[in-house]
Amino acid sequence: MITLHEIQTHFKALQSSICEGLELLDGVGEFQSDPWQMASGGGGISRVIHGVHIEKGGVNFSAVSGPVSEKLKKLLQKEGDTFFATGVSIVLHPVNPLMPVIHMNVRYFEMADAWWFGGGIDLTPHYIDPEQARDFHRSLKAACDQSDPSYYAEFKQWADDYFFVRHRDETRGIGGIFFDRLDATRGKSKDELFQFVLNVGQSFLPIYQKLWHQNVHRSYTEQEKRWQMLRRGRYAEFNLVWDRGTRFGLETGGRTESILMSLPPSCHWMYNYTPEPDSREQMTLQLLKKGIDWINWSGGQ
Amino acid sequence: MITLHEIQTHFKALQSSICEGLELLDGVGEFQSDPWQMASGGGGISRVIHGVHIEKGGVNFSAVSGPVSEKLKKLLQKEGDTFFATGVSIVLHPVNPLMPVIHMNVRYFEMADAWWFGGGIDLTPHYIDPEQARDFHRSLKAACDQSDPSYYAEFKQWADDYFFVRHRDETRGIGGIFFDRLDATRGKSKDELFQFVLNVGQSFLPIYQKLWHQNVHRSYTEQEKRWQMLRRGRYAEFNLVWDRGTRFGLETGGRTESILMSLPPSCHWMYNYTPEPDSREQMTLQLLKKGIDWINWSGGQ
Repeated sequence: MITLHEIQTHFKALQSSICEGLELLDGVGEFQSDPWQMASGGGGISRVIHGVHIEKGGVNFSAVSGPVSEKLKKLLQKEGDTFFATGVSIVLHPVNPLMPVIHMNVRYFEMADAWWFGGGIDLTPHYIDPEQARDFHRSLKAACDQSDPSYYAEFKQWADDYFFVRHRDETRGIGGIFFDRLDATRGKSKDELFQFVLNVGQSFLPIYQKLWHQNVHRSYTEQEKRWQMLRRGRYAEFNLVWDRGTRFGLETGGRTESILMSLPPSCHWMYNYTPEPDSREQMTLQLLKKGIDWINWSGGQ
Repeated sequence: MITLHEIQTHFKALQSSICEGLELLDGVGEFQSDPWQMASGGGGISRVIHGVHIEKGGVNFSAVSGPVSEKLKKLLQKEGDTFFATGVSIVLHPVNPLMPVIHMNVRYFEMADAWWFGGGIDLTPHYIDPEQARDFHRSLKAACDQSDPSYYAEFKQWADDYFFVRHRDETRGIGGIFFDRLDATRGKSKDELFQFVLNVGQSFLPIYQKLWHQNVHRSYTEQEKRWQMLRRGRYAEFNLVWDRGTRFGLETGGRTESILMSLPPSCHWMYNYTPEPDSREQMTLQLLKKGIDWINWSGGQ
């Protein structure tokens, strides 16, 4: 059975290979490496890029441990003395408003005899292109199907529910897959679940490469850039108000700079901004809904 | 004894007079007026300015009512069918980084036989000028002392505790006064407490005018503007992560655009930005602490 140490080693290697791949894509930007330690135990390596195409990108690896607080026991409804958590977390904010924001996370947690995996990939286009959304979801389905034919549908819905900006009544983007607390009750071994999570992590780079080549060199207007700035504001709102991972980290003394690597490099807020009827901005808002069957998008919807 | 209707009328008049005063200061910008209604009852008037000096300013009046949710009963630990709430809330983000951000709020709440007032004024300079901080706190003390000699010290500490960005271990700015649930248990009548709250509201404009004339025409550098953008990011972090009023509003279906009028027009996030030693930015960070005795600031501290 795979050990904590092996999981960490795989996650760290995933961080390295993704950073290398992203540097090749950007062509100019290079990741800076910022190792850090937690007083309670363990630490991580935050890697940050400011490229010509990736305006602000963070690829964070962490492997931390610490005493289990009363709050954590209550939250998890479990007893334990020490927890271990390791994961890789990525958010990439592009310069080009026609290129989507992407987020990926894989993580493993254990405490006493309990353990589980979590993670996911989701996409936040500033302008939704339904065909690209379809392709994105099909790639995720292919990655899920390698492990279990039921995963995609379940985890797609989970992402719709999780990445929801309640006070705006809109999804953060076109969703993707999200999963948490995958453990032996799923009828899979730890090795099988780890393999699934690793597949998800390894699917990230090819998925992003495809989106990159489709979008990153397209020319854009000032209006599109302004819209991107407003959408980045919504991204910040989701992460700071609703994202449970972010809030849990900030409330329990996690490393703030690593947690908030996900925030955009810049953003705007305008009072009550409403796009023109039938504009591409308005079309995007109409597609920020739960439950869209992107896999079978036919253009007729 | 003052009625709900009279309180509302005073608050609405306060909104008007402050908007007029701010238009005179800015000289160019004019407030747009956006009346809105809540499905549950009542509504408000959001007034927004984009001036030459006030980059984004919001002065919001609301007078809403609605059924008391289970969540609200639990939060307030009180029974009731219908609540009424009225208030004025202001946040002004200046163009000039040498001009502080200011926030003011006065509010009244009632449910069944319970009622209380809350509010406050606090200042968030991008660069802290200790003498201006001292003058600001002295003005607040003068406004408090008219009602009760104990108020300033108590409400100053309350502001230090409330406007605290826990995940950054820093105060939002130099604080000010903050108070909540002022009711008959304070040994004052409703009329007396209302008079106090109105004094606070009416002290806003002269306090802001003084800061305006001291700062708004000072020239500034690109570096100062960049720092302002980072500080605006912290302002957004506080409001979205920690501000109980904002979070309560967003979680209970308040009017999002009015609640988020407080957010800056734009902001930046940079990974792990650290000011130069002995810079004015660094000096500001050192003063973002609880418990500074601004009233008696002598320059020797």
